[in-house]
Amino acid sequence: MIDLTPIGIIHSPFTGHGQAPRQGRSSNEKMKIEIYPEYQQGIGTMSGISHIWVLYWMDRADRNTLFAKRPEWTEKKPVFTTRSPSRPNPIALSIGKIEDISDGIITVTGLEALDNSLVIDIKPYVVEIDCIFDALNPFEKKE
Amino acid sequence: MIDLTPIGIIHSPFTGHGQAPRQGRSSNEKMKIEIYPEYQQGIGTMSGISHIWVLYWMDRADRNTLFAKRPEWTEKKPVFTTRSPSRPNPIALSIGKIEDISDGIITVTGLEALDNSLVIDIKPYVVEIDCIFDALNPFEKKE
Repeated sequence: MIDLTPIGIIHSPFTGHGQAPRQGRSSNEKMKIEIYPEYQQGIGTMSGISHIWVLYWMDRADRNTLFAKRPEWTEKKPVFTTRSPSRPNPIALSIGKIEDISDGIITVTGLEALDNSLVIDIKPYVVEIDCIFDALNPFEKKE
Repeated sequence: MIDLTPIGIIHSPFTGHGQAPRQGRSSNEKMKIEIYPEYQQGIGTMSGISHIWVLYWMDRADRNTLFAKRPEWTEKKPVFTTRSPSRPNPIALSIGKIEDISDGIITVTGLEALDNSLVIDIKPYVVEIDCIFDALNPFEKKE
C-alpha cells in the first residue's frame, strides 16, 4: 500500500466535469494552487521557472475501469493508452504556466483541474527532460 | 488519505542509487515493466504509441525533506523547484520509449528506475499536450 500526503489544494472555477476543458492547455482560466503552510518552504520563489508539472488527485474519477471512451471514438480503448481521468490511480499530469506566486499560493493558467482537487507534487518543467519532439501522436492513428 | 494501488513492477539493471543515471533520457538500458495480470487489459497493444509516461513510486527516496542539493550546486534548493527523487510524495515522472510489448510486459528504454520500483500509472506521451517548447530552463539560471 502506498499512501500519499496532499501538499496543497487547487482553487478552480471548474466545479463539475462538464465545465472543465478536456485539456487545460487550451484554457486561460486562472487557478490558485494553495500550498499548505508546512510545505511552503519547498516552493521558494520559483525563480527561473516558467512552467510546472502539477500532479493532483482526480477524486471524482472512476478507479474501477480499464477502458475509456470519448464521444468521437467508435469504440472504447485500453485506459493506459488514453489520457482519461478515470484509471486505477487517477493522478493528473498537467502543466501550469506560472502567472504569480505569493504567500504560498501559485497562480497558474493551463490546468483543467476541478475545484478542491488535492495537490500531490509539483516539479519544474524542463524542456530537455520532458519534450520528446519526435514522439508519435497516438490519437492520430486509429487502432 | 490517498491510497495508491500498484499496477505493475519495474525490472531494472539498476539496483542502487549510485547506478541509476540522473536522467533516464541519457540511458539506453532496457527495462521491463511487468503489468500485473489484473491490469493487463488496460494496456492493449499500445498501437500507434512510441513513448509513454511511466509514473512509479521511488520507495528508496527520502519523504521528509523540503530541500534538495546536487553536488554541483553551491546551496540547497526548495525541493519543488528540483527534480530530486526525495520529496514528500516521491512519484517519478519518466518517459519510456517502447521497444517491445508482449505477455503484459512492456520493454522500454529511457528510464532511470531502480529495480523493483512499483508502477502507479502509464499514460501515452502526446507532443501537443506535453511539449512546452518555449519553457524557461530552470537549471540554466542560478537563484
